Amino acid sequence: MKSKYHQLKKRCFEANLQLPQLDLVIQTFGNVSVVDRENSCFAIKPSGVPYPELKAEDIVIVDFNNQVIDGDMNPSSDTKTHAYLYTKWNTIGSIVHTHSAYAVAWSQAQMGIPILGTTHADHLVQDIPCVPPMRDELIKGDYEHNTGIQIVEWFSENALDPLEVEMVLVGSHGPFIWGKDADSAVYNANVLEELAKMAYLTLQISPQAERLKASLIAKHFQRKHGSNAYYGQK
Amino acid sequence: MKSKYHQLKKRCFEANLQLPQLDLVIQTFGNVSVVDRENSCFAIKPSGVPYPELKAEDIVIVDFNNQVIDGDMNPSSDTKTHAYLYTKWNTIGSIVHTHSAYAVAWSQAQMGIPILGTTHADHLVQDIPCVPPMRDELIKGDYEHNTGIQIVEWFSENALDPLEVEMVLVGSHGPFIWGKDADSAVYNANVLEELAKMAYLTLQISPQAERLKASLIAKHFQRKHGSNAYYGQK
Amino acid sequence: MKSKYHQLKKRCFEANLQLPQLDLVIQTFGNVSVVDRENSCFAIKPSGVPYPELKAEDIVIVDFNNQVIDGDMNPSSDTKTHAYLYTKWNTIGSIVHTHSAYAVAWSQAQMGIPILGTTHADHLVQDIPCVPPMRDELIKGDYEHNTGIQIVEWFSENALDPLEVEMVLVGSHGPFIWGKDADSAVYNANVLEELAKMAYLTLQISPQAERLKASLIAKHFQRKHGSNAYYGQK
Amino acid sequence: MKSKYHQLKKRCFEANLQLPQLDLVIQTFGNVSVVDRENSCFAIKPSGVPYPELKAEDIVIVDFNNQVIDGDMNPSSDTKTHAYLYTKWNTIGSIVHTHSAYAVAWSQAQMGIPILGTTHADHLVQDIPCVPPMRDELIKGDYEHNTGIQIVEWFSENALDPLEVEMVLVGSHGPFIWGKDADSAVYNANVLEELAKMAYLTLQISPQAERLKASLIAKHFQRKHGSNAYYGQK
Repeated sequence: MKSKYHQLKKRCFEANLQLPQLDLVIQTFGNVSVVDRENSCFAIKPSGVPYPELKAEDIVIVDFNNQVIDGDMNPSSDTKTHAYLYTKWNTIGSIVHTHSAYAVAWSQAQMGIPILGTTHADHLVQDIPCVPPMRDELIKGDYEHNTGIQIVEWFSENALDPLEVEMVLVGSHGPFIWGKDADSAVYNANVLEELAKMAYLTLQISPQAERLKASLIAKHFQRKHGSNAYYGQK
Repeated sequence: MKSKYHQLKKRCFEANLQLPQLDLVIQTFGNVSVVDRENSCFAIKPSGVPYPELKAEDIVIVDFNNQVIDGDMNPSSDTKTHAYLYTKWNTIGSIVHTHSAYAVAWSQAQMGIPILGTTHADHLVQDIPCVPPMRDELIKGDYEHNTGIQIVEWFSENALDPLEVEMVLVGSHGPFIWGKDADSAVYNANVLEELAKMAYLTLQISPQAERLKASLIAKHFQRKHGSNAYYGQK
Repeated sequence: MKSKYHQLKKRCFEANLQLPQLDLVIQTFGNVSVVDRENSCFAIKPSGVPYPELKAEDIVIVDFNNQVIDGDMNPSSDTKTHAYLYTKWNTIGSIVHTHSAYAVAWSQAQMGIPILGTTHADHLVQDIPCVPPMRDELIKGDYEHNTGIQIVEWFSENALDPLEVEMVLVGSHGPFIWGKDADSAVYNANVLEELAKMAYLTLQISPQAERLKASLIAKHFQRKHGSNAYYGQK
Repeated sequence: MKSKYHQLKKRCFEANLQLPQLDLVIQTFGNVSVVDRENSCFAIKPSGVPYPELKAEDIVIVDFNNQVIDGDMNPSSDTKTHAYLYTKWNTIGSIVHTHSAYAVAWSQAQMGIPILGTTHADHLVQDIPCVPPMRDELIKGDYEHNTGIQIVEWFSENALDPLEVEMVLVGSHGPFIWGKDADSAVYNANVLEELAKMAYLTLQISPQAERLKASLIAKHFQRKHGSNAYYGQK
């Protein structure tokens, strides 16, 4: 008999499979989750399973208290971070975590990714933020839960809106990315890696390259996201 | 019933599909247009459609006043730039816009790509020009139309001929590339990204690498483009 | 009639085929061996055979004294290094040798790969060691055997445990990687190349990037390897 | 009726197809030739033909005076360089010319590729030489013929043996590579690009990285090429 979460698992499964296809992960790295707001739960990749072996029925369903409510496998070790973000940010529908190389490099350098061009501005109008590494007492505690807290607090303290900035680097670790649904979140994960690579190359060519000027930031963002947006089909 | 622009749409569709195959775009980035001089219109990719979902009948036909004359979807948000270039430069048959990483990096560094070797000279005898970012009042105006104006004016002021220099970087943004037909324009887009990568690597190895000397520039260009050209099959 | 080592050869063959698929080798570079502790022998790639031409029956079976006991071809020229490591370290089940580009670059720079982030700490809690190039008299002697001696002595002198540090760079040469079985060893070879690339990019972005702090090293390693490990499906 | 050069064309065709598969060329770049010493001629790629459109019967047969003796298309514009090398070096059986990015970058930097590790020493015991750009009067003359002269003279003046050093960078241009047959020449072209990339990465990590020490150079070369060679299957 099919699980009542069959469709949710399938969406989550297909989103996870995109990560290796887009060269955002190797081996067992990374994970995608998809939320079901009505049932207050989310689907997430099981921990440590290589993508070629992953099956839709392996996807684990977890509630917002991190309890497995459907599925035979252990959920991703990053599950508590996903749960915390879903709890605090009720506008997001899916979360992606990768260890894609350029995004990780900026995380390991503990630097946000500066907005250097219109490719960046088409997606967000700020630098991609980098949350500093956690304080030691939090690391020793409930680490993945506290990673969620750190991200949410950083957004709050810096007046960032998760609807406008759909990605973050966790210092010394790597990126978390989200979106209104699984396709958007995976799209954003792909865009982040590309922006991280472009910023890397730009600063290698010209270390003193300057941030995109305000008028161009505003223009590119508005054509995709403003009230008179004319990018896309709606 | 097939559109009278069926063949034009098909050519444009196939050219667009080459962009992801050549790793020049991710997701929905970039676009190719193909002009029909007889009917004073051009075919262009619809805005924001992922390449794997694109169909030939989705291609939009637009006239030189940016009016859609055939097709159900919104044309690319860069349509006005294409229209302006077709209007001013009646020798070009197709335009490509990408956000390929190395070309974008040079654009974000606001630097032209110096001619450092014969691979470059086989295609053009100047640095690949980089048009500076637009003045604020133009950005706030008809931005994509003004991008076209900037490119054409830059070529005019710098005595560049669009038949000889078939590519340009728009500062802080990325490349526009063209050619006599869709195959040539896509070929040039691929060459540009390769030249951008080669110049990047060269200057990382040797920051003081010098421009190709004049005699080699002349020789390599003439064997492909001079009156006694002996490259290729005609 | 099938060799009694048929299954062992097959496992070794399949592991070798993964190296080009994971972009860890070109042409004939690299090799994987798999040990059979019960029969005191190991299977290894034949020397100089391109991967597309390799067949399972080409795999050579060698004993711990480097004698071929089954197979028609010459074993890898690195065979004596494999044999020595199997003899001294009876916990390892498979060894991989590649010339993957980023790992080789660190080897050629004669530098260990610093632990800069949690991707690294998920796998080992030290820098990836780099054994200095051999003394001249050892090179002139039994070179591949002596390479094994050098690796084992370096681990001993630096109190490194081959169960905890499953990879090493040999200065001026390249990496050797191992694991409890062929899948683990190939997994580790893939991870090493990714860590080598991430560390490279990080230090290009920020030459003064610091090592991961101790609390994060401990946390990430424990969640995968500690007594309360919660990563994976066991 | 099949050309008497049918087999020669087929070998040359298949070798050419390997170049895009190994990511050594884009579009129409590069070419492979294969010599027929008995008939004093060689097969070479026609000029400017994209690889996906190339057919075995398109391959052109040229004699050592650069005259087409079989085939309907124009031979590669680099034909005279190939002819000169075949004439002067009667030990070589095939020549490859690519514009692979890392090899071109070293050529554009006008620097030889230093021998930094054993991957390099497995193939040659010197730096990969870079011939300086041609003098202007030679460029204006019979350019491709003179490129051949420059390469041969450089080897002669620097006491390099084309049997031991099977590759060269032409300054400001790119690499020429050869071997005893087409497979060897293509193999060497692939190895060159990998060595060029490894040397690039090494010097980015550590600009003061030193050349491989003499004892290791000798050892690695001898195990592949010495009288007691034990690499490979013969």
